[in-house]
Amino acid sequence: MLSLSLFAVEPRGTGDMGIVIERANGSILIIETTHNSQLYRVEGLGDLSHASAVFSRDERYAYVFGRDGGLSKIDILAGTLVKRVIQAGNSIGGAISQDGKIVAVSNYEPGGVKLFDSANLELLADVPAQYADNKQSKTVGLVDLPNQHFIYSLFEGNQIWLLDAHNPKQPVIRKFTDIGLQPYDAMVSNNGRFYIAGLFGEEGLALLDLWQLDKGVQQILPEYGKDDPKKPVYKMPHLEGWALTDDYALFPAVGHNEVLVADRHTWNLVKKIPVHGQPVFVIARPDGHQVWVNFAMPNNDTIQIIDTLNLTVIATKKPGKGVLHMEFTPRGEAVWLSVRDEDKIQIYGTEDGQLRAELPALKPSGIFFTARAHQSGL
Amino acid sequence: MLSLSLFAVEPRGTGDMGIVIERANGSILIIETTHNSQLYRVEGLGDLSHASAVFSRDERYAYVFGRDGGLSKIDILAGTLVKRVIQAGNSIGGAISQDGKIVAVSNYEPGGVKLFDSANLELLADVPAQYADNKQSKTVGLVDLPNQHFIYSLFEGNQIWLLDAHNPKQPVIRKFTDIGLQPYDAMVSNNGRFYIAGLFGEEGLALLDLWQLDKGVQQILPEYGKDDPKKPVYKMPHLEGWALTDDYALFPAVGHNEVLVADRHTWNLVKKIPVHGQPVFVIARPDGHQVWVNFAMPNNDTIQIIDTLNLTVIATKKPGKGVLHMEFTPRGEAVWLSVRDEDKIQIYGTEDGQLRAELPALKPSGIFFTARAHQSGL
Repeated sequence: MLSLSLFAVEPRGTGDMGIVIERANGSILIIETTHNSQLYRVEGLGDLSHASAVFSRDERYAYVFGRDGGLSKIDILAGTLVKRVIQAGNSIGGAISQDGKIVAVSNYEPGGVKLFDSANLELLADVPAQYADNKQSKTVGLVDLPNQHFIYSLFEGNQIWLLDAHNPKQPVIRKFTDIGLQPYDAMVSNNGRFYIAGLFGEEGLALLDLWQLDKGVQQILPEYGKDDPKKPVYKMPHLEGWALTDDYALFPAVGHNEVLVADRHTWNLVKKIPVHGQPVFVIARPDGHQVWVNFAMPNNDTIQIIDTLNLTVIATKKPGKGVLHMEFTPRGEAVWLSVRDEDKIQIYGTEDGQLRAELPALKPSGIFFTARAHQSGL
Repeated sequence: MLSLSLFAVEPRGTGDMGIVIERANGSILIIETTHNSQLYRVEGLGDLSHASAVFSRDERYAYVFGRDGGLSKIDILAGTLVKRVIQAGNSIGGAISQDGKIVAVSNYEPGGVKLFDSANLELLADVPAQYADNKQSKTVGLVDLPNQHFIYSLFEGNQIWLLDAHNPKQPVIRKFTDIGLQPYDAMVSNNGRFYIAGLFGEEGLALLDLWQLDKGVQQILPEYGKDDPKKPVYKMPHLEGWALTDDYALFPAVGHNEVLVADRHTWNLVKKIPVHGQPVFVIARPDGHQVWVNFAMPNNDTIQIIDTLNLTVIATKKPGKGVLHMEFTPRGEAVWLSVRDEDKIQIYGTEDGQLRAELPALKPSGIFFTARAHQSGL
C-alpha cells in the first residue's frame, strides 16, 4: 500500500543555508550559498542592532538574539517566525547547548543568563549575575562548551562563571573571581579548551584552561589593550573574531592599526602586522591559510587579506561603506560580506579574491551560516 | 495571492542525518542523530565492502563509493537511489570538490582517478595513473583540498599526484615522484595543509606541505611501520583515522599493540601508548579531549578511550564482535559504533561513556554523518 503525505514546504537540504541580519528593519534574510540567492525575508524581530544567531542541531531552526531582549525562533525551511519572546530588557547574544536542547541568552539588563527550552522557548532557569550583595553584573562572552556546559564573564563582577546545564532547571555554577577588570567579551579556542576574556579595565587577557580548571585563571599577553589613553578607540574589537591557525592566534589590536600575532602555545607576541585601520573582526578562512580583516570607522569601507604563512597583507579591497561582518562558506571557497551603508551583500571567491555576486539587503549586519550548528564555542 | 505547492517528501533539516553502510546486504541505512532513529533503508548498491561516502554541500545527497566500482547518488531526504553507475572494476573511495560540483573516485582497476559531475554522475575526466610506459598504478589516499584540488598517491608508482580541477574536463596534474615505496593510504591535516602518506614498502611516512609545494616531499617518523617481519599485521590501519589535537598526532602503530603519539610540529615521536590490540581507527572527539580506538582481529570486540591531556587509556569497553567503525556526532556528545557481527549500531555518550541506544543494522561497517559536507580533506 502506498502511503503518500503532502507537505506545503519545499523539501531541501539545509547544509548550504544561512541568515543575514537586517538590523534597521528588524528582519532577516534566509539565503543559500550554492546559487547565492535569497529564499525568504522574515520580519517583526524587533531591534536587531548587534544581533547574533545560533542554529538547531538539525540545521532547520535559527535562534536570533536581539539587542532589545528578544529571542526569536525561525523555521528557515518554511521562512516563518515560529515564536518570539522578550526575555530581558537588553541582551548581548546567546549560545546553544551541545545536545541542542537548551538556548542560553546573555543579558545586560537585568544582568544574568537565562536558559530556554529550544523546542518551545519556555524558560528553564534564570541565573542572575549577582556577584555581591545587591550587585548584579552585565554578562558578556557567553559560549557553549562540550559536556552540556556554558561559560560567560561578568563585566562589573570581574568574574568568569562556568555553568553546568545537565539539569537545565537547576544549573550548577562554578565561579572564578578576580579574573581581571571588566571583561567585555570572550572567545573559546576551536576545540573548546581555552576560554579567553578581553579586559576593558586593564591590559592583558584572562585565560582559563577548561581541561585543567583547578589551575584557575591566568593572565596572558600583558601588553594587550588600550595602552595609550589619548588615542581614540573607535570600536572595541570582537574577540569572537580571533583567528586561530595551527601555530598562531591573530587578533585585533585595540586602538591601533595593527593585527597582532601570538604564538598559540606560549601566548608570546610574535609580530604586529600593520593594517589599514583599527581592526574589528579578524577571521580565518576554514583552512587557516588566509585571514580576512575589517575595520572600524572611518576605515570601514575596506577589508584586507593576510596570508598566515608569511604573516603579511596580500590584498586590500574596497567593498563599500560599512563593512560590518564576514562569514566564510563552510569549506572556505567563498566569503560573504555585509556592506551596510550600500544595502548589499557581497560574495567573494577566496582563491582569487574576486567579487562573484551581490545580493540586495536592508542595512545588513551579521551573517550566519547553518554549518555553525556543528561547531562548539559559538 | 497565495501560491501553495505540495511535496511528497517530508521537509526536515538535514544537519543531523547520516548513513550506515550495510556491507553484506548492498544497502545503506539513512539515520538521524537527534532521536537516534532509522529513517530509510536504500538497497541495490552492489558490493559495499570497504565502502565510504561523501555528501553534497547542501547535505541532501550522499555519494557512496563501492568496492565493485559502483558510484551511487542517494537522496537522503527521500530515501531513494537517484542514480548508480559502475565506473571501474575495483575502487577504493572518493572525495567531493570544495564547491561540491565534482565527485572524484580512486580506482584500483583500471588504476587511476575519474571525475564525475555531482549533479548527474556524468564522466568529466578519466585520469589513468600511468607512471611509466605501459605501467598503470592503483591509486590510494584520495582527498579533496581547498581551491578545487584533489590529491592522491600511486601505490606501484611511488608518487603523489596533485590534481587541479578548475577545469574538470581537463584537469592539470602536478606529480611528485619517488616519495617512498608503495604508499597505501593517506590523510590530510584538518586545515588542509599537510598531506601524509603511509608507506607499505618501507618505514616512515611521506609528508607534503601543500602551502609550500616547492619544498617537495619529506620523510617523517622514520621509525614508523612494520619493523618486525616476523610479527603478523592483522589489518593495515587506516590513516584517515589519525587524530590531530592541538599539540599531538595520535595514530595506530602497524603490527603493535600501541597508539603512537607524535609532536605535530616537529613530527618527533613523543610516546607509545600501550593498548588492547592492533589499532585500526584512532579518532579524536571533535574537541580533541578524547580519542577512541578500535582494533583488528582477534581484538575487534573492544574499544578503548584515551585522554589526550595525560595520553593514557581511561576506559575499555566491549561493544561486541566486529567493531568496524566509529563516527562522532558533529559536536561530539555521542559516538556511533558499528558492531558488524552482532548486526547492530551502538550509540554511546562521550562524557560518561555509557551506552545510550542501539539500532539494528545488517552487518554494518562505515558510518558517515552529513556534517562531513562542511569539512575538507575527507
